[in-house]
Amino acid sequence: MLKLFENPASGNCYKVRLLLHHLGRPLERVFVDVTPGSTRPADLLALSPTGRVPLLLLDDGTPLTESNAILNYLASGTAYLPDEALERSRVLAWTYFEQNLHEPHIATRRYWVSLVEDSSPRANQLDFWLENGKRALATMQKELETNAFFGSDHYTIADIALFAYTHVADEGGFDLGDYPAIGEWMNRVREQPGFVPMG
Amino acid sequence: MLKLFENPASGNCYKVRLLLHHLGRPLERVFVDVTPGSTRPADLLALSPTGRVPLLLLDDGTPLTESNAILNYLASGTAYLPDEALERSRVLAWTYFEQNLHEPHIATRRYWVSLVEDSSPRANQLDFWLENGKRALATMQKELETNAFFGSDHYTIADIALFAYTHVADEGGFDLGDYPAIGEWMNRVREQPGFVPMG
Repeated sequence: MLKLFENPASGNCYKVRLLLHHLGRPLERVFVDVTPGSTRPADLLALSPTGRVPLLLLDDGTPLTESNAILNYLASGTAYLPDEALERSRVLAWTYFEQNLHEPHIATRRYWVSLVEDSSPRANQLDFWLENGKRALATMQKELETNAFFGSDHYTIADIALFAYTHVADEGGFDLGDYPAIGEWMNRVREQPGFVPMG
Repeated sequence: MLKLFENPASGNCYKVRLLLHHLGRPLERVFVDVTPGSTRPADLLALSPTGRVPLLLLDDGTPLTESNAILNYLASGTAYLPDEALERSRVLAWTYFEQNLHEPHIATRRYWVSLVEDSSPRANQLDFWLENGKRALATMQKELETNAFFGSDHYTIADIALFAYTHVADEGGFDLGDYPAIGEWMNRVREQPGFVPMG
């Protein structure tokens, strides 16, 4: 069975679990503590020296890392990753946007403000993350004013990647009420067959 | 002919030009000023409201954005992007690493320190970018101590994506002399058929 080293509060880990739920594939979950100063399980460190999660272990023991690369692997050959080259490139573009302009600001701010609950060492970063996170949400809002999903006319790994940290952005101090099209898109995501909440 | 809206000092733009050189595909280059306060060309803004570069215009006028998504599109079906699912996932993993843990720190620090030459508004960020950029370089160094290339036994878009800002990291205040395996890998990249320098 697939085995996922993960933390239930991590959006990057949730992406993998959400796609596997859509695909109806069973999964063994292995809890990993990600708070500062915590130690990683030895079996995880044996697979990956950095101990970063998510790490997906395939049936034959092959480890895969980087959430969006795992999504690419699992979604290949399914409707969640278009085969057509141009459409696929547009879907991938949003997954890179997520890792470059969205997650570093929105997920990181949530981590320090809400999960660690000790933002003092990063106090001078909070404004920077807020400013850049808002810019990412505004880009999403603009796209969703004329499109139902990201990069495709249907739900794909681009939506999964972006939903993961967007739907908990309020925990990082972002007001999603400012982005009504994002709210409607989140409802569409929650209506997808096999949807499962974070946690 | 392919048309690339780009800035010659941008690593993200260079990635696309480098791959096209490897592939022997001719290219029309359109200069875009990316200094703060500059205005974007009207034909670029008509294609993309944010005016971000690189933007690649295909022969039929289709615009593609996000450097690593463009690499995926152009490299598909060539040796620069493996077909085999596991190998492809490992290559993609490094392209997401680049956009998430490398570019936001190394490229951004270089931009403010070296290109804009006015880092005062971002002074409190410089240490953060330095610390995180060094962590990314250490991860690369570790990988290259046992592997010639990233995620594959041969040169791929993972190497192209990582070379773009690594080889100019010194302009951001990073000392590449601390990472000898990265130096050797950069030599291997420069030896690839069709290699072209940034600029």
